[in-house]
Amino acid sequence: MNGAQALIRTLVDSGVDVCFTNPGTSEMHFVAALDAVPRMRAVLGLFEGAVTGAADGYARMAGGPAAALLHLGPGLGNGLANLHNARRGGVPVVAIVGDHATWHRGRGAPLESDIETIARNVSRWIRSAGAPTAVGADAAAAVAAALGPPGQVATLIVPADVSWGDGGVVAPAVAPSTRRVVPDELVEDVAAVLRTDGPALLLVGGTVPADPAALDAAGRVAAATGARVLSEVFPTRLARGAGVAPVERLAYFPEDALAQLDGLAHLVLVEVDAPVSFFAYPDHDGLLVPGGCEVHTLAAPADDGAAALIALADVLDAPASARADAARPGRPAGALDAAAVAAAVGALLPEGAIVSDEALTSAVPLPAATAGAPPHDWLTTTGGAIGQGLPAATGAAVACPDRRVLALQADGSAMYTLQALWTQAREGLDVTTVIYNNGAYEILAVEMARVAAERAGPRALELFDLTGPRLDFVALAAGMGVPATRAETADELTRQLDAALATPGPTLIDALVPRLT
Amino acid sequence: MNGAQALIRTLVDSGVDVCFTNPGTSEMHFVAALDAVPRMRAVLGLFEGAVTGAADGYARMAGGPAAALLHLGPGLGNGLANLHNARRGGVPVVAIVGDHATWHRGRGAPLESDIETIARNVSRWIRSAGAPTAVGADAAAAVAAALGPPGQVATLIVPADVSWGDGGVVAPAVAPSTRRVVPDELVEDVAAVLRTDGPALLLVGGTVPADPAALDAAGRVAAATGARVLSEVFPTRLARGAGVAPVERLAYFPEDALAQLDGLAHLVLVEVDAPVSFFAYPDHDGLLVPGGCEVHTLAAPADDGAAALIALADVLDAPASARADAARPGRPAGALDAAAVAAAVGALLPEGAIVSDEALTSAVPLPAATAGAPPHDWLTTTGGAIGQGLPAATGAAVACPDRRVLALQADGSAMYTLQALWTQAREGLDVTTVIYNNGAYEILAVEMARVAAERAGPRALELFDLTGPRLDFVALAAGMGVPATRAETADELTRQLDAALATPGPTLIDALVPRLT
Repeated sequence: MNGAQALIRTLVDSGVDVCFTNPGTSEMHFVAALDAVPRMRAVLGLFEGAVTGAADGYARMAGGPAAALLHLGPGLGNGLANLHNARRGGVPVVAIVGDHATWHRGRGAPLESDIETIARNVSRWIRSAGAPTAVGADAAAAVAAALGPPGQVATLIVPADVSWGDGGVVAPAVAPSTRRVVPDELVEDVAAVLRTDGPALLLVGGTVPADPAALDAAGRVAAATGARVLSEVFPTRLARGAGVAPVERLAYFPEDALAQLDGLAHLVLVEVDAPVSFFAYPDHDGLLVPGGCEVHTLAAPADDGAAALIALADVLDAPASARADAARPGRPAGALDAAAVAAAVGALLPEGAIVSDEALTSAVPLPAATAGAPPHDWLTTTGGAIGQGLPAATGAAVACPDRRVLALQADGSAMYTLQALWTQAREGLDVTTVIYNNGAYEILAVEMARVAAERAGPRALELFDLTGPRLDFVALAAGMGVPATRAETADELTRQLDAALATPGPTLIDALVPRLT
Repeated sequence: MNGAQALIRTLVDSGVDVCFTNPGTSEMHFVAALDAVPRMRAVLGLFEGAVTGAADGYARMAGGPAAALLHLGPGLGNGLANLHNARRGGVPVVAIVGDHATWHRGRGAPLESDIETIARNVSRWIRSAGAPTAVGADAAAAVAAALGPPGQVATLIVPADVSWGDGGVVAPAVAPSTRRVVPDELVEDVAAVLRTDGPALLLVGGTVPADPAALDAAGRVAAATGARVLSEVFPTRLARGAGVAPVERLAYFPEDALAQLDGLAHLVLVEVDAPVSFFAYPDHDGLLVPGGCEVHTLAAPADDGAAALIALADVLDAPASARADAARPGRPAGALDAAAVAAAVGALLPEGAIVSDEALTSAVPLPAATAGAPPHDWLTTTGGAIGQGLPAATGAAVACPDRRVLALQADGSAMYTLQALWTQAREGLDVTTVIYNNGAYEILAVEMARVAAERAGPRALELFDLTGPRLDFVALAAGMGVPATRAETADELTRQLDAALATPGPTLIDALVPRLT
């Protein structure tokens, strides 16, 4: 058995049986080994950003990692932005990066690069496999490292001669660490804080927003103490919909977040660090915790926040949580805009849907319109690196073939990793994509208005304009084998969405919406 | 004047008046400053790989750098592969990477990353601007560093508060270093070597292949001594065509390169390091210099190789060089394959054309078919990171608006940075793209056959198959505003190419060619 076979067999034995990949020459023996290990499913992406984003989306829904097989430093570079998002989201990913044969390193071959250095930005666990005999054990260690807690990107660099060399040994799975159980005394301390006067807020992140039981416990704490509950700005996965304890998200812009946090006496953190704003601005220093607010960590990111919340609710002898009522908006009519798209989504979202949300400025009306839809999961761009939405939808669909995936996607950011559509077509994935085609980098136009409106002349604003030429997503989708339609009215959008959600395989709707600015 | 204005004014004063960009929030003040400095042309790309590849292609043709404006670590990551190619090609690029405000760094904001660490893979010169008063001087230093010699990627990290802060000071241009003149004694030594017996070969790289006078001098040396001349595998820019001294390229596969170098007694390096193969293989260690061959460095990569070659030819009292005769193949007829495309290109290539070649396996017949075409320049994928061809064509067209650019592009690698087509449409660039659509990662199928044919089963080979679904480049191009046609016969291809080369603005031909394997 060569090293590549030992590597793949070990991955499968460790529970990693999907490999998203865009391989190159140094990965040929890994690819050749796939036929020897039919339990490993290889899913091809046409660009590494689509591969790593799919691995991220897969793990968010599967609960365990996929592998992402990449080609040397440039391949890792191409996949880095979505690994950044995975890192920020605490999502387990096993990144396997092929390298030159050990003796060919350092000779200045054209594709030579420092893979470890590139990986350092997204991985705390990095190992270069040294021998076919050990690469199985390396793989088992990588899977355990990826699982955390918290989940992380584990990078295993595999030189070509380690793949092709004989003597491969399959290693047994390594048991991952478990989340630390929060001590009773800490729960009691936080309960005491919440029983005192002063406005309090629970900020929940990590794995908590994905867990309806944890959200329910947070809701019970709120019902018992009057504390409010917010999730981090971009939760990795947020369970919501009718019957689920509702939780709002911290706002993106600092002035909105400050308004949410204004006047707080106590901020209780659950699997999340104290919040700072996405960006600092000339008139805003980027800090969000109000002066005088005490910050209490109930659960650090590696702790079991769900259990801590349940314990806290029990200690407080808390009543039942509020739950979202079942409620859908009516089917929208008239002009098509982001609010109409949100209403159509709210009206039609199927039970158990997975929403991949990279709608950016168009996302604002979505939470309210979908709050009472049947239970569903919501995935966001955890690290702020755009180009995550379509790949994550792709990976989520691989993880959950029985659930409908709905990608709500801004036009500009769609163009970073549009190649994901081809993988959806190739794999026949049930993904419905709605492109909010406003012909603009609208978030940048908004940001410009916030920071430098007085200096933004026509040459600056031109850089946010995507109408010369306007992107035709119907043609782009067709070019990759995904059937697509264009919607120009709310009624068209609603009828097309209704049909798309009932159609097996991927479809795309190019929804022409107006700009905000 | 704020820092951003000082930065842009300094760049322009230093000769950098084109900025390829995909900006984000941290770059808003740079964008806002564009209206104050109309001499700076900003060219928008929809993905950072298209931006950095365009900056690379621009500099190859302009001789000096463009700026590439990128957004934090993820933006740099997205652009890293083509910066890798620029690094390998010794191409000057000024990469400007926006960062968080200085005080917002280290707080764990979602987009925080270690930009310097990512940049280290492609840049030896990296600086983080510290103050608006100094960012002008930083920019002038970056331009000088980018110019080398040899050319390189200089990375200037600009925190947002350095951009928006007042007190910006425009700095004067910094004179770049000049190339070292090779000492007469070294030229004499090499002349003595070449006068002795034993087969000798000049391997030329760096700026030499771009310079017809340098190639002519190499040809004179060959005429005087019987030495052969080869260029490095993937020259940054190769001048060729009728009337130019012809130079073949070192072969890609090691067995072919070894055949070229077999039996050599002397290898003379001119602006290039001793060659190693792209990859090592189980049956090939990756070394190319034959045992017993003496290696002589006439000019290191930072030396003036052209002057050294001219001096060498003069010392040898060399006769005139051979020159390529004017000769074009006939217009091809019959079935469409890579040879027919090559013949059509040879038959129609306009004088002064710039060819951006990322045709990979389909490129094999191109050199012979175009050897006698009117003089033209040939750009290659210097670092082996695919996704360079379309962006480089875009940048070359910005640099040379009076010349026709022809992008000869494999289908699989086109999909990495296809967004470049949109920039071509937006800017109205005279770029004609021919996609060799063989529905496969054919280079990988070839590599698999070389290394592991006996183990490559159907599941492995499936990963090289791009026909399920087949990419429709006519639709993809139309989606980005580039008119396109499909060619299924040699005659269709030739007529379409003839028309496309006479059409202002970008066009694309989706040429359906058969696989090799």
